[in-house]
Amino acid sequence: MPRLVLLRHGQSEWNLANRFTGWVDVDLTANGEDQARLAGQLMREAGFTPACGYASLLKRAIRTLCIALNTMDRVWIPVHKHWRLNERHYGALTGMDKEEVAARHGDEQVKIWRRSYDIAPPPLAADDERHPRFDPRYAALDPALLPDTESLKTALARVEPYWRTEIAPRLAAGEDVLVAAHGNSLRALIKILFAVPDTDINLVEVPTGNPMLIELDAAGAAPRAARFLDEARAQSLPPLP
Amino acid sequence: MPRLVLLRHGQSEWNLANRFTGWVDVDLTANGEDQARLAGQLMREAGFTPACGYASLLKRAIRTLCIALNTMDRVWIPVHKHWRLNERHYGALTGMDKEEVAARHGDEQVKIWRRSYDIAPPPLAADDERHPRFDPRYAALDPALLPDTESLKTALARVEPYWRTEIAPRLAAGEDVLVAAHGNSLRALIKILFAVPDTDINLVEVPTGNPMLIELDAAGAAPRAARFLDEARAQSLPPLP
Repeated sequence: MPRLVLLRHGQSEWNLANRFTGWVDVDLTANGEDQARLAGQLMREAGFTPACGYASLLKRAIRTLCIALNTMDRVWIPVHKHWRLNERHYGALTGMDKEEVAARHGDEQVKIWRRSYDIAPPPLAADDERHPRFDPRYAALDPALLPDTESLKTALARVEPYWRTEIAPRLAAGEDVLVAAHGNSLRALIKILFAVPDTDINLVEVPTGNPMLIELDAAGAAPRAARFLDEARAQSLPPLP
Repeated sequence: MPRLVLLRHGQSEWNLANRFTGWVDVDLTANGEDQARLAGQLMREAGFTPACGYASLLKRAIRTLCIALNTMDRVWIPVHKHWRLNERHYGALTGMDKEEVAARHGDEQVKIWRRSYDIAPPPLAADDERHPRFDPRYAALDPALLPDTESLKTALARVEPYWRTEIAPRLAAGEDVLVAAHGNSLRALIKILFAVPDTDINLVEVPTGNPMLIELDAAGAAPRAARFLDEARAQSLPPLP
């Protein structure tokens, strides 16, 4: 039976600084690097030998994947990096201090932006230097694809085609797969896999650097069991579909 | 004009231990990691911004590439790993101490194995545990493709198709490309690019962790200039073709 691990990147500089990160390419902290190594060790001990790895285009996910694979002695497997696995884009909140945003807009509004399913923060202006169209890593993309803000719903809508066309077929072929990504792009994958209702998905917490191992059915489509490998930091998982 | 950097991996554990390495997957030393970081810094200072990276399936090359790209803030570029960029396979000498081999076979014979163009060491037996067919990273390949020993000539014969079908077309399309590989797989690429005669290619030395920057013609085919970025450790280069 194919196995899938969803791995949220280790602690980043802005997890620590309490800022809205989204598509800003902040690095791991030294603690985040340690988390990535521990994640690799836990996957190795679980006998997890992925045939390939996936990451977003953001270094905190890519480096988490590389560090974990190095610990697993599997840096030689193919690694695919794609913008569709990026974190949810936080629009005009990008880079802002979460407490300052709360002081300006109120706790209730911030909670809505962070925890509603389909309400996005205000968009970035097209000429805002934070807009992804100014980032060379997206230069080859159709600019119409690039978000200026996202709700979890619209983030899921851009994650889902990559899941369906690139990742799910590898699982359907019987391969084990490792995906290193972000709190919200992983929520999107969990919502798809576990058929989580819109109202419940933002209650799902994915801890940083804690591999979520999902055992799939023979078709590589439906989860049959799931657990976090670092049991001391495990969070509750949605019910199996 | 497209630019190509050929980067030999940083110092490995067996460069240090003076053993024939070949396809054995030894890691970088701490010094080798530092060399990879310095290589990245030199490429960044040279304004080299590759669109993609290539490495062998061996961790000393892959990790050199990843560490250098991290220093260049470009871990997001596509990275392709392929067995055809592996080091020359050293056959039955694999893993042996170079001095012990010299004591047993004589300095002259060792020099022939190391420096002739078309004489390979004795092959590995098919049931030798060092044979690549027992390594999971080659499990999906036709076993007939896997070498049990190689001369530089036969190593070049398996590097060349990958160069021609995968790397050269990117340069021909005007992209800058970074290749992290090994002393002999890079000699093979240098022989192809600079049309070095069989008798001269083993005189070409590629220092570890020193980026060799090659400026190509507009077609991305012929070298127009070449230099090592770490000038203090530069070696002489073959004449331009």
